[in-house]
Amino acid sequence: MNIRQKITPEDMRERIISVAEEHFRRIGYAKTAVADIAAALGMSPANVYRFFPSKSAINNAICQRILVEVGQLIAGIAARDLPSPDKLKAFFVELHQYYRATLINEHRLHDMVEVAMAENWPAIDAHCQAMVMELAGIIGEGVDNGSFRKVDPAEFAQAAFEASAKILHPTLIAQGLNCPHGKPGDLGQQDDQVERITALILAALRP
Amino acid sequence: MNIRQKITPEDMRERIISVAEEHFRRIGYAKTAVADIAAALGMSPANVYRFFPSKSAINNAICQRILVEVGQLIAGIAARDLPSPDKLKAFFVELHQYYRATLINEHRLHDMVEVAMAENWPAIDAHCQAMVMELAGIIGEGVDNGSFRKVDPAEFAQAAFEASAKILHPTLIAQGLNCPHGKPGDLGQQDDQVERITALILAALRP
Repeated sequence: MNIRQKITPEDMRERIISVAEEHFRRIGYAKTAVADIAAALGMSPANVYRFFPSKSAINNAICQRILVEVGQLIAGIAARDLPSPDKLKAFFVELHQYYRATLINEHRLHDMVEVAMAENWPAIDAHCQAMVMELAGIIGEGVDNGSFRKVDPAEFAQAAFEASAKILHPTLIAQGLNCPHGKPGDLGQQDDQVERITALILAALRP
Repeated sequence: MNIRQKITPEDMRERIISVAEEHFRRIGYAKTAVADIAAALGMSPANVYRFFPSKSAINNAICQRILVEVGQLIAGIAARDLPSPDKLKAFFVELHQYYRATLINEHRLHDMVEVAMAENWPAIDAHCQAMVMELAGIIGEGVDNGSFRKVDPAEFAQAAFEASAKILHPTLIAQGLNCPHGKPGDLGQQDDQVERITALILAALRP
């Protein structure tokens, strides 16, 4: 039996994505060619193109994976048995931490995110709307159990999501971490921002 | 009497800045050379360098001029005789409008702002701190006259400033206006964001 027969197209896609992600992180999105990814996998570029029509399609697949992970993280928070204010706080703190952990190791990942945001906007937009819906669920729960004042959960969730761009928008997180004025104290500064913005949102929800 | 004697070094700096700004807006920061600016002024590049050591120094001077304008705008709002909630709202609405008007005509201006933010961070940082102080003044006034609950004005102003990154941060305003998914409806969308974020901040300040 030929061992190659066991590799499904799905396996191949996963391998290509993993090797590409490693290259994008180490060398940078712009400087990585499909030929480099193919060489690292011991295959021809033409073979890679059988699975992905372009480098940007590979990048979009990587970002799609990140979006799925974020979706799972948020669904997990929403399902927790916690008082509504704590759950709301967990939403902002853990989402910020996730993005920061994803962006912090290598600022080259930032290019990937920017490319994906530019090229794959409908997916990102749908993802943002899904995040706002989860947030609306948490807020609606708090309105129902009396923790929060009576607001329209969807409308307030939209406002709260927009008000947290400083701590949730990948571009701003990366700017805070990687721009020329980045200092070792900036991580603590971002923690303070998360704290302040969450407190402001909770104050706006006080009954 | 030689008419040239009437041109002071300050006049020359102003002329260079004006011509450079026009070039940066029309051709783009990256594609404009100091030689182009010099040619448009009918002088040699060496003569331009007598006034500014580099292209980036000219850019910083342009951005400095914008920062001064913003400072005057905010000081004007703070001095108005208005109920505190209206004054707070004017701060966010008018500052957003100013940035949008400065960014909207030519997205090439965006490069200038990004370069300045990267190269001239202490000035931008000082500018942000000055904006937060003006905001703290408006909030402190509202606390004193009973319009707002008792908060620490400086601390709350910092939080409110961070919570308005979506509507005040040049990078995000430009992204909303110029990214590939920009649609004619986006201006109205940004107006809605200003409305929602301001309402959220005012709700957090309710007594």
